[in-house]
Amino acid sequence: VENGKLAYQWASNYMSILHKIKQKNQKGNPLFGFKLGLCLHITRETSVLVMTARDLGAEIALCSANPLTVNQEICTFLSSEGINTFAWRNETDEEYNSCIRSVLDFKPDIIIDDGSDLHIAAHKYKSKRVCGGTEETTSGVKRLKSLQTKKRLLYPVIAVNNAFTKYMFDNRYGTGQSVIEGIIRATGVFLGGKKIVICGYGWVGRGVAATARGMKALVIITEIDPIRALEAYMDGFYVKPLIEVAEIGDIFITCSGQKEVIRQEHIERMKNGVILTNAGHFDVEIDVKYLKSMDCNPVRLLPYVDCYSFDGKKVYLVAQGRVVNLVCADGNPSEIMALSFANQLLSIIFIAKND
Amino acid sequence: VENGKLAYQWASNYMSILHKIKQKNQKGNPLFGFKLGLCLHITRETSVLVMTARDLGAEIALCSANPLTVNQEICTFLSSEGINTFAWRNETDEEYNSCIRSVLDFKPDIIIDDGSDLHIAAHKYKSKRVCGGTEETTSGVKRLKSLQTKKRLLYPVIAVNNAFTKYMFDNRYGTGQSVIEGIIRATGVFLGGKKIVICGYGWVGRGVAATARGMKALVIITEIDPIRALEAYMDGFYVKPLIEVAEIGDIFITCSGQKEVIRQEHIERMKNGVILTNAGHFDVEIDVKYLKSMDCNPVRLLPYVDCYSFDGKKVYLVAQGRVVNLVCADGNPSEIMALSFANQLLSIIFIAKND
Amino acid sequence: VENGKLAYQWASNYMSILHKIKQKNQKGNPLFGFKLGLCLHITRETSVLVMTARDLGAEIALCSANPLTVNQEICTFLSSEGINTFAWRNETDEEYNSCIRSVLDFKPDIIIDDGSDLHIAAHKYKSKRVCGGTEETTSGVKRLKSLQTKKRLLYPVIAVNNAFTKYMFDNRYGTGQSVIEGIIRATGVFLGGKKIVICGYGWVGRGVAATARGMKALVIITEIDPIRALEAYMDGFYVKPLIEVAEIGDIFITCSGQKEVIRQEHIERMKNGVILTNAGHFDVEIDVKYLKSMDCNPVRLLPYVDCYSFDGKKVYLVAQGRVVNLVCADGNPSEIMALSFANQLLSIIFIAKND
Amino acid sequence: VENGKLAYQWASNYMSILHKIKQKNQKGNPLFGFKLGLCLHITRETSVLVMTARDLGAEIALCSANPLTVNQEICTFLSSEGINTFAWRNETDEEYNSCIRSVLDFKPDIIIDDGSDLHIAAHKYKSKRVCGGTEETTSGVKRLKSLQTKKRLLYPVIAVNNAFTKYMFDNRYGTGQSVIEGIIRATGVFLGGKKIVICGYGWVGRGVAATARGMKALVIITEIDPIRALEAYMDGFYVKPLIEVAEIGDIFITCSGQKEVIRQEHIERMKNGVILTNAGHFDVEIDVKYLKSMDCNPVRLLPYVDCYSFDGKKVYLVAQGRVVNLVCADGNPSEIMALSFANQLLSIIFIAKND
Repeated sequence: VENGKLAYQWASNYMSILHKIKQKNQKGNPLFGFKLGLCLHITRETSVLVMTARDLGAEIALCSANPLTVNQEICTFLSSEGINTFAWRNETDEEYNSCIRSVLDFKPDIIIDDGSDLHIAAHKYKSKRVCGGTEETTSGVKRLKSLQTKKRLLYPVIAVNNAFTKYMFDNRYGTGQSVIEGIIRATGVFLGGKKIVICGYGWVGRGVAATARGMKALVIITEIDPIRALEAYMDGFYVKPLIEVAEIGDIFITCSGQKEVIRQEHIERMKNGVILTNAGHFDVEIDVKYLKSMDCNPVRLLPYVDCYSFDGKKVYLVAQGRVVNLVCADGNPSEIMALSFANQLLSIIFIAKND
Repeated sequence: VENGKLAYQWASNYMSILHKIKQKNQKGNPLFGFKLGLCLHITRETSVLVMTARDLGAEIALCSANPLTVNQEICTFLSSEGINTFAWRNETDEEYNSCIRSVLDFKPDIIIDDGSDLHIAAHKYKSKRVCGGTEETTSGVKRLKSLQTKKRLLYPVIAVNNAFTKYMFDNRYGTGQSVIEGIIRATGVFLGGKKIVICGYGWVGRGVAATARGMKALVIITEIDPIRALEAYMDGFYVKPLIEVAEIGDIFITCSGQKEVIRQEHIERMKNGVILTNAGHFDVEIDVKYLKSMDCNPVRLLPYVDCYSFDGKKVYLVAQGRVVNLVCADGNPSEIMALSFANQLLSIIFIAKND
Repeated sequence: VENGKLAYQWASNYMSILHKIKQKNQKGNPLFGFKLGLCLHITRETSVLVMTARDLGAEIALCSANPLTVNQEICTFLSSEGINTFAWRNETDEEYNSCIRSVLDFKPDIIIDDGSDLHIAAHKYKSKRVCGGTEETTSGVKRLKSLQTKKRLLYPVIAVNNAFTKYMFDNRYGTGQSVIEGIIRATGVFLGGKKIVICGYGWVGRGVAATARGMKALVIITEIDPIRALEAYMDGFYVKPLIEVAEIGDIFITCSGQKEVIRQEHIERMKNGVILTNAGHFDVEIDVKYLKSMDCNPVRLLPYVDCYSFDGKKVYLVAQGRVVNLVCADGNPSEIMALSFANQLLSIIFIAKND
Repeated sequence: VENGKLAYQWASNYMSILHKIKQKNQKGNPLFGFKLGLCLHITRETSVLVMTARDLGAEIALCSANPLTVNQEICTFLSSEGINTFAWRNETDEEYNSCIRSVLDFKPDIIIDDGSDLHIAAHKYKSKRVCGGTEETTSGVKRLKSLQTKKRLLYPVIAVNNAFTKYMFDNRYGTGQSVIEGIIRATGVFLGGKKIVICGYGWVGRGVAATARGMKALVIITEIDPIRALEAYMDGFYVKPLIEVAEIGDIFITCSGQKEVIRQEHIERMKNGVILTNAGHFDVEIDVKYLKSMDCNPVRLLPYVDCYSFDGKKVYLVAQGRVVNLVCADGNPSEIMALSFANQLLSIIFIAKND
């Protein structure tokens, strides 16, 4: 309990906006009588959101949006505080679904989700009490829009992801720091003077590029959208097609949100010792299948670095191509999560008031 | 063995200059017949230096310059390669001295040291075979100069530390990256917009300031040397006396090489939640004694963060005031250590040739 | 003629996109038979737009959107090329209106305007042949929207100003360079270490802030919009209310697009020797009337710097509070104007094709 | 008189260190009874030095160190203040020498020089009263050292140029701003995204590189010294041999202090429309003779831009290859000159006290 509590306290320090929202809404106890069902990445920041909602009167059941990202000490702490916590590290698929069922059995009035697994399950099991919900991610919103198109969406959901204060600060500033930190932590390489190729100049790419330049790296941008490419050019970065810079990059970071950005024709041209990393949400931006087809037995050199050897060269893949800031570092900092979770909390209060 | 070997190979990738020096000097086997006694921080980078020297013909005995920084897997690997390795993690003082004695019993011709403990011991036990040596640090050089003044220095020593390619690159660029990385890794705080007070604008301070600005922090410099202060001002930093900015800083980083830079009168003015870290070699720049006198029972919030509570506020001390980049991160990157160790290797070859 | 031609050629070098649009549209001679009436700032960049439109078949009459910004050599050159040019440096109000009338007497089919003076006149005199037009500025678009609301707009107008490639590149990048250059050219001050207060963090403010930081100035942002203020904070700038930083700024730059941003209560707190400049379109952001009420006889110290003396201090006003990059430097660079004028040219061709 | 006085007052604002030196030394009137002979660039900053020396009791005669850089209004002002001023704009060689003679005829006790023309003349005419002097430039110091070697130096001279506060601030910070400003003022080009090749990474090169990056240019460094090249690399710049980047640079700036840095083999590879500029003291870094051999009749496109046409391309030479910040802009800012002139003034007082 103690470690989880300390981690919760630490994160609280940097999330004072949640505290302010609590103070402003404390009169009337706006969440009193409401049951919240949450399906989120269980981190120290999440515990701050959960505790704040409880302090505003809510009853809460919580499961994890991802079996791999559960912080066990936080689970222990939240349980000790009377939060119904259905989550543990390394759940099996069956356990994962069972946890979601447990949250639904709790009969939530409001559902807070990250990826929409809980929303979809609520629809499947026709939970009748739900009066509204929120969704944190783009991909989760997509799934709900599909339901809406089929006129099967049973309750209104607020797309928290679409808030400017979410995607701009979260994607640009938060990810900018945490991706670069994840790469240093995983590989130990010195970034000064390294040629870092950043694929995509959206909010994430802009943030990563700015931080990489701040570390004195030599940043090269690849971008297929012409206006973004022009923006990158005027921001003072080299802008080139990926195929042309494949052979000169020391480190590649995919930030595009697209599939198979780095493919066979690029990897073939890359130099010996190249490092490949992904900053996008899903592990689809680097063609890992191709790497495995060339070397089915890569060597794990460092905890998060696999070495693929073929064609007389070595290719280092970080975190198996999964999102580097969450796997190799601690994800977005508390200050940034505070902005996302402020939107979540305000949305919950809004739904409760307008029930 | 395997992990140590992989770590050695990883570091080798980024230290190709040692490989080049080896190739250039391979004819004639310049270190053949020489016994080297080394007392260094045992890291993956050190293993690259050791293996290169062995490949040039040297016989080698190795102990650690610091009981806390021993990489056990590297020790195992080096032993498996036939290097006489007298070191293990968490040596007691007695064991530490015994390891140094073991290296001297090996009767080295050349001594390579980091801090001069091995040099001093060689003088104490009047090792007769030593024909020369090197010293990596400023403080080690000081001890040797003191011997020289008393006309008691028994053999010539090259002060590798004084090379421009050592102190400039090591201190400015290497430390610039690793200190900032250590702070993020230890605390998880977001640096964008944080007011970071950097005490001292020497090589280390310049490097840390540049990287902190690159992370979008708001950097404030304190510096008592007027020309350095003017340089910091023209580099676009706020420059103020420490006492005046004590109450506005979010994070303080000491980079001065001086004693008791951050003292009672500063800490008293600091705000609640301030973070104190040290980037200097010794743990003397922050007055930890004062903190302990105010709160004899600090809480360890995170593995490297202690919370001192007094006067109604909390002060977070990172790594107990010890050097943050070595304690909380991996020290200087391989690319930077390669420059220092190139000087070491060239010095060893020079001594051997001029024996 | 020669100087105007050379200036036209120089600008052409950096506006190749207009050349490419010409080449792509040359077949069919899309502007043949169309009369264009233009009311623009007559600069070397404008001559490139005019010559390109002529090469695509148009007949052209041109007057100036501002009597003070006429480049006389460009007028001479354009006249020599057969363009009907009704403009000269320092026109009186009467002459200015007479020039506009001359363009209307030319009976244009398409009107290209900067500020909408020509559009308004065309409505007043009920020009019947006009089939469409474009407008470059925000304020011009406002006047036309007012006509539209009253159902009195006689022909469709494309708001070129609203294109992302106009306001982002023009306002952020172009103005970022030219405002800083204008300040240096007017005052000669060294920017390194200077405390520069930038009022407003819209596109112009962002651009000016980035360039000022690039010159190693110490940048402070004032911004009333909370999300923009947070963005400025995370970009690593000091963010404060203007009233709090009035007494510490060395240079103030208004970039807000609002009226009376810098007022009596701010100026009263400012220090001796402060420099006030405006980067907004209109000369309303600094309360010049207040300055004049305090010192009705300011001294012109340098060609673009007036010194107001009162309350025992001196306040330096640059360019009488008018937009510093156009008055003290050459306005936006050719590369940036090329983007705006590409939109203009494509709009003209679109209108001609859809007549 | 009025304009010169205003310009003097403007510069005084930014040179308060001279005022402080005056205040500190005012007792005892240390320069009373001394005649100073000065040979300096006659700028507004110089007038501040001259007036301060006069206020400390000196009698003064002044001539110009360069016939082209004389500020006529400053001459008029100084004359009106009783300074013996022997200088005017565009002196002939004969007039230039005559002015120097006039200063010697004044029988100075102390000589302050920039280039050593006055010192050499004093030796030629065996001025007997001179008890000491100062010299501002590297090249001037060279000439005096040559005299010293031949044991013909008649009085001690302080090499003001060698002060750390002169060469570091003057060369890095001052030149960094003024060179970039000179290029923008001369050509009007937008620097964002431009590939700027900087030849040499000494103090000037470092300053220009930092400012160019601050303007969002893409900076490439060429440097033959390996340690400086490594420094540039770790500072995050592209570092390449000039011959390899000749064909990709948009703008070249020589900052090397060497002769014929940009030569035929480089110019032949450059692309159409390239801009060549020099930031070094002498006009020898770009091989202008080669350009003239290829096009003996270059066209002056803009006041400071000559277009050489040959081999089917155009090469734009700025300021005929002379130092761009002095020719196209106002040289170093007052704040920077204040540091140089503080050294001058302290040296003069020292000489007077130790006569």
